[in-house]
Amino acid sequence: MTEFIPPGTRYHALPDGFAMKRGGRLDGARIAFETWGELNAARDNAVLIVTGLSPDAHAAANAGNSEPGWWEAMLGPGKPIDSQRWFVICVNSLGSCKGSTGPASIHPVTREPYRLDFPELSIEDGADAAAHVVRGLGIERLACVIGNSMGGMTALALLIRHPGLARAHINISGAARALPFSIAIRSLQREAIRLDPHWYQGRYDERSYPEAGMRMARKLGVITYRSALEWDGRFGRVRLDSDRADEEPFGLEFEVESYLEGHARRFVRRFDPNCYLYLSRSMDWFDLGDYARGDDGAGPADTRAGLARIRLEKALAIGVHTDILFPLQQQQEIAEGLAAGGADAEFLPLPSPQGHDAFLVDIARFGPAVAGFLAKL
Amino acid sequence: MTEFIPPGTRYHALPDGFAMKRGGRLDGARIAFETWGELNAARDNAVLIVTGLSPDAHAAANAGNSEPGWWEAMLGPGKPIDSQRWFVICVNSLGSCKGSTGPASIHPVTREPYRLDFPELSIEDGADAAAHVVRGLGIERLACVIGNSMGGMTALALLIRHPGLARAHINISGAARALPFSIAIRSLQREAIRLDPHWYQGRYDERSYPEAGMRMARKLGVITYRSALEWDGRFGRVRLDSDRADEEPFGLEFEVESYLEGHARRFVRRFDPNCYLYLSRSMDWFDLGDYARGDDGAGPADTRAGLARIRLEKALAIGVHTDILFPLQQQQEIAEGLAAGGADAEFLPLPSPQGHDAFLVDIARFGPAVAGFLAKL
Repeated sequence: MTEFIPPGTRYHALPDGFAMKRGGRLDGARIAFETWGELNAARDNAVLIVTGLSPDAHAAANAGNSEPGWWEAMLGPGKPIDSQRWFVICVNSLGSCKGSTGPASIHPVTREPYRLDFPELSIEDGADAAAHVVRGLGIERLACVIGNSMGGMTALALLIRHPGLARAHINISGAARALPFSIAIRSLQREAIRLDPHWYQGRYDERSYPEAGMRMARKLGVITYRSALEWDGRFGRVRLDSDRADEEPFGLEFEVESYLEGHARRFVRRFDPNCYLYLSRSMDWFDLGDYARGDDGAGPADTRAGLARIRLEKALAIGVHTDILFPLQQQQEIAEGLAAGGADAEFLPLPSPQGHDAFLVDIARFGPAVAGFLAKL
Repeated sequence: MTEFIPPGTRYHALPDGFAMKRGGRLDGARIAFETWGELNAARDNAVLIVTGLSPDAHAAANAGNSEPGWWEAMLGPGKPIDSQRWFVICVNSLGSCKGSTGPASIHPVTREPYRLDFPELSIEDGADAAAHVVRGLGIERLACVIGNSMGGMTALALLIRHPGLARAHINISGAARALPFSIAIRSLQREAIRLDPHWYQGRYDERSYPEAGMRMARKLGVITYRSALEWDGRFGRVRLDSDRADEEPFGLEFEVESYLEGHARRFVRRFDPNCYLYLSRSMDWFDLGDYARGDDGAGPADTRAGLARIRLEKALAIGVHTDILFPLQQQQEIAEGLAAGGADAEFLPLPSPQGHDAFLVDIARFGPAVAGFLAKL
């Protein structure tokens, strides 16, 4: 598997025997991370960023890598997450293929990639691994943990499993549990990969690779990350030039189809299919309500009660009206649940037209919201 | 190809040389239809229903077929579309496989199925064919044409191409043009079928059939026909019993996944893949703005101006807030455009949680809306 790990990535070794929530242990595992700014003497200015499914740890340009990162407009000197004030850490999720240990990594004993022998991955495992990185950097208490999308789940898992590790939290287009609509979409993405004969039960290689399945999965992702409203403004009904249109029957004809195809082609060989499957399913399993079933683990999950068990000083849950994957009600639920737990928690719905991905592009709205919250810490 | 044509279906023969909008002609083509109620002596009580992509002409039980139809709660004696007052016609779309001529039909000369030799299909062709059925039944002027989903497009095409053929119109979850978001979803559905090696460029048969591709396409359809809100109430995070869960890696685990699988399995062998491709693409091509480009056909499409060229006495455009495929703005556009053309046109947004499919299931809201409009004709 060709890996696409940004230069300048640093690593934190997880302890041998790292226990996974659903069973199994990892030896020799590591978490990729990057940092911005300096930890102050009191060690109280650290901000942790946990990400969505696909990003690496390179959220923005830094000393180790001057290339722009995936949240370049949000993070850096003088930016909303100001690296002149904050010491910022971004981790690549456990289970990913961007430097952290995951199904594409080499098993320390067999010397072969784990593939489907990787233990079942939960959101909680990613949270526990991120907590190791934070403590490994000598930080006992984060000023804030910021989680986007899947990272919004990871942040909540970190907060409930590591009480006191963070004073404040910004949850962006995240969720305290997976909804059936989102499960359905992710299930279909996984099915597209699994149905590709080149997936071969996870035993593909460079030459025989589930490219069609990954392309389908990514296209479905890109569609559901955005919104009907935004795309009408962006693409309308513009046709491809005849020399770019597809001669195949029922082939590409509209600009929007070509946009999807381009996105998919760029992604397909840069993200490992098995890692995609593992991370995708970890989201389906997540429900903070599991932590409110009582000590015996029986009884129905109560997501709000799970949220109310988290102790924070301040919290902000941001979402957008046009998000169909992590709909706005889920960010409202987070704010209300954290408030019920005693946090000074605010719910901020934004009118961004860009859907679930708005936090990556609508910096005009998300920037001031994040900067304003951090300024009050 | 096994055909699934309801018993009691009637047929109207299209004239030989039936001209398709994008080129090509059909000989020996026919349209399947059913009727309810009686045409009165003045021949002024006829209502035409044009459908979404998949339904057949059996909208409700009638003299020829006592089985419930796909709009059973809406159509019949004393129902919102009251067959004691109205003579109701429902046509199966040209290009479908439910009795009307389409890619799965036998070519009259080669005696082989058309498959991809079927001429390119437009929404307008379906509208022209439906107009033939109406006139063939001795009707010069419909009291009302009702179009749902794709049928909302067909109805608008019929109205602009056959001025005077209808006095009134109800457009339900329809659109005057395809939006790029919907094009993207349909493009992905078609890609799932095309990528299935068993599609074989349209030359599949019963034994080698693109079942996986059709299943994917249908699942994506079912997901986008509904809404996140509704599914949370219906499925929540309910797991399958262990004996129903899938043992395959990354197999089915949640109730919602099993629901989708069941839907897909029921559909796959009951709808012809090539017909699906043709009908799907006809929606992408549709833009009523094409009729407002000026006589030379040049200049940009102006959807509102196209709508304003339609002459109607009364119109009603109904939509729901949770529809992501034909979003509410599109029904508002229809009402405003038809009003600009001089119709007494109303826009009725409904708070149904069921998304695009609400008109099939939320009869409590759609029934009174349709009945109230028809009562005033």
